[in-house]
Amino acid sequence: MALLQAKKSTAPRILVAGGPETGAARWLTGFGAPDPFGVAMTSADEVHLFVSHLEAARAAKAAKPGVQLHVIDGTLSAALVEWARSRQLRKVVAGTALPLGVARAFEEASIAVSLLSPQDEPLPGRLVKTEEELRYIRLAQHAAAAAVARARVILREATVSSPSGQLRWQGRTLTSERLREEMENVIRSRGCASDDGLIAAGGRQAACPHEAGHGPLRAGTAIILDVFPRHQASGYWGDLTRTLMKGRPRNPRILAMYRAVLATQRRVFEALRPGVTGAAMHQLALDSLAAAGFPLDTTPGHERGMFHGLGHGVGLDIHEEPRLSLRGPVLAEGNVITVEPGVYDPAVGGIRIEDTVVVRPDGPQFLAPCSRALFIP
Amino acid sequence: MALLQAKKSTAPRILVAGGPETGAARWLTGFGAPDPFGVAMTSADEVHLFVSHLEAARAAKAAKPGVQLHVIDGTLSAALVEWARSRQLRKVVAGTALPLGVARAFEEASIAVSLLSPQDEPLPGRLVKTEEELRYIRLAQHAAAAAVARARVILREATVSSPSGQLRWQGRTLTSERLREEMENVIRSRGCASDDGLIAAGGRQAACPHEAGHGPLRAGTAIILDVFPRHQASGYWGDLTRTLMKGRPRNPRILAMYRAVLATQRRVFEALRPGVTGAAMHQLALDSLAAAGFPLDTTPGHERGMFHGLGHGVGLDIHEEPRLSLRGPVLAEGNVITVEPGVYDPAVGGIRIEDTVVVRPDGPQFLAPCSRALFIP
Repeated sequence: MALLQAKKSTAPRILVAGGPETGAARWLTGFGAPDPFGVAMTSADEVHLFVSHLEAARAAKAAKPGVQLHVIDGTLSAALVEWARSRQLRKVVAGTALPLGVARAFEEASIAVSLLSPQDEPLPGRLVKTEEELRYIRLAQHAAAAAVARARVILREATVSSPSGQLRWQGRTLTSERLREEMENVIRSRGCASDDGLIAAGGRQAACPHEAGHGPLRAGTAIILDVFPRHQASGYWGDLTRTLMKGRPRNPRILAMYRAVLATQRRVFEALRPGVTGAAMHQLALDSLAAAGFPLDTTPGHERGMFHGLGHGVGLDIHEEPRLSLRGPVLAEGNVITVEPGVYDPAVGGIRIEDTVVVRPDGPQFLAPCSRALFIP
Repeated sequence: MALLQAKKSTAPRILVAGGPETGAARWLTGFGAPDPFGVAMTSADEVHLFVSHLEAARAAKAAKPGVQLHVIDGTLSAALVEWARSRQLRKVVAGTALPLGVARAFEEASIAVSLLSPQDEPLPGRLVKTEEELRYIRLAQHAAAAAVARARVILREATVSSPSGQLRWQGRTLTSERLREEMENVIRSRGCASDDGLIAAGGRQAACPHEAGHGPLRAGTAIILDVFPRHQASGYWGDLTRTLMKGRPRNPRILAMYRAVLATQRRVFEALRPGVTGAAMHQLALDSLAAAGFPLDTTPGHERGMFHGLGHGVGLDIHEEPRLSLRGPVLAEGNVITVEPGVYDPAVGGIRIEDTVVVRPDGPQFLAPCSRALFIP
């Protein structure tokens, strides 16, 4: 896999993992850790990994072949600067996420730090997934689909209390919390876990895309299930969203929202090919939703329509490049991306439908099958 | 609670959450999110929160009283720079974790970015926990203790296969994975989750402090259980480690290791008071372990002794200030810290015992009771 950017520049690239570059560093070295560690890449074939004694043995075991391991005694900044000094470097390059403290340590040693441009920032080969990577993402995606299938069974079995409309299941009120717990059990039985959470939000709560959901679920309101499990052994994520409803809708508008989102996702899938831009796909979705009567409205605190990006890359990070949003880049064969149109209305609730797919010349390749049906009898 | 550092400087302090400053930003504003968001603090009473439309409604709900919410349209860097420009600022201050891209955006707008010194970097009031914060940490710590208690029951019920020494429980081999699953069920039943993992590592695997553990567990070998659940509603962490052994030790050295670690933790607790430094406590532990025959040896890849810090602060981050390590600062009343001496030997395994305590004038206040006994019949 070609690390083009390393060949274009003669200056080594420095990453500091432990923040947003953890996924990139793991992809490059094979090693991951919750606390900061460092990576210096001088070419595709020369990657240096800097870890503390605490991680030395684990890093030696996890490191990909050829990665050169440095076990450091002092601070990470000092070790990276010392390494650069020992090679008499005058310049290094870094992404926007490099901690300022590390940049200043280089500068104090008279080593310039050049910021990569946005298009050079992602490690290029990283966005085209290998068969091995697809296998891991598929495992996570299947776990997500199994969790949604479990939620369908639970909602089917649930009864509706009158007149509140609250759902009951196995003798108790069915809450967002309970539904999440049941879904998480399925996810965990498949070697995955919801390391970054799990959304089961119904009614007006679903108008807020990142609301996890709390309290009793009700019939006739849309329940957004956004499931993003991580395969624990490999670190790869899946990402899947379905919206379900027990019984008939209380507000007919939600049905129009559902149809608009479903049709929008289909239109994007029809247009999705290597060579299109993420920006074009995002705009296509916005236009499709607006034409269906759900234009974007970004009045702060009263956002309606699709006030998030249409999608994002998925891999060792749950949100990575390429983005399907305002400035989304050209998509390439082998990119793994989500397509997740949604519309939200604070007075009604929300609808979102999301799949994770591989970009292929003959159209998107789905990583796990999962019904998109809204209604559950 | 006094935000001393904000009063010392006239320049606003800029944080970017989504990396290592997520916990600090949540502490300051009440709002947390997985993706980057921004905070500008001009004084203890004037805190600005910068979020995308995606998070606007959730941020408005979560924000502490008085926090000023800015919903941004473009990039986070641009919004922070625009805010600083509108106030005609010439200078801002930031911690070492500020992303370099944000610093460069300020500098391009002729606004200087001063790096805070290590002692100014933590938000000062943050390290002295309020009663409310202690309540949340206690919930997480009790969940951890309950999980260890569950592991004790399982190990007691387990039988030993001959001659392999492998443990069996409820008709199947007892693996690290199964034990973790059982512990996690307990943790989740208490409104917590192991968002950053859970360690159940036995035998030589336990010689590697961050090894999660895999495969069958064996009698006569030390099993390290390091449990760090997060209370989901509040975001606060707990942190607890116990080492357990089914039956009698295969290698008598492990018993000496256990006694040394236990005595070392007790010695640290006896010395732990407001006014001592984290560095002094770390050194005390190293000396105590060396005197017992377990000196630190940092030969890379063959580390022995306590080749990690003695402890760290716990709050909205699992690893936060104050550190009990080489450069650990003065400890104050109300700090919540772990005390986790450990010794490791690649040929034998590892022993670690960890409690999370509040620093008090009359000695450490424990947040959850939990037996330190090694042996399980």
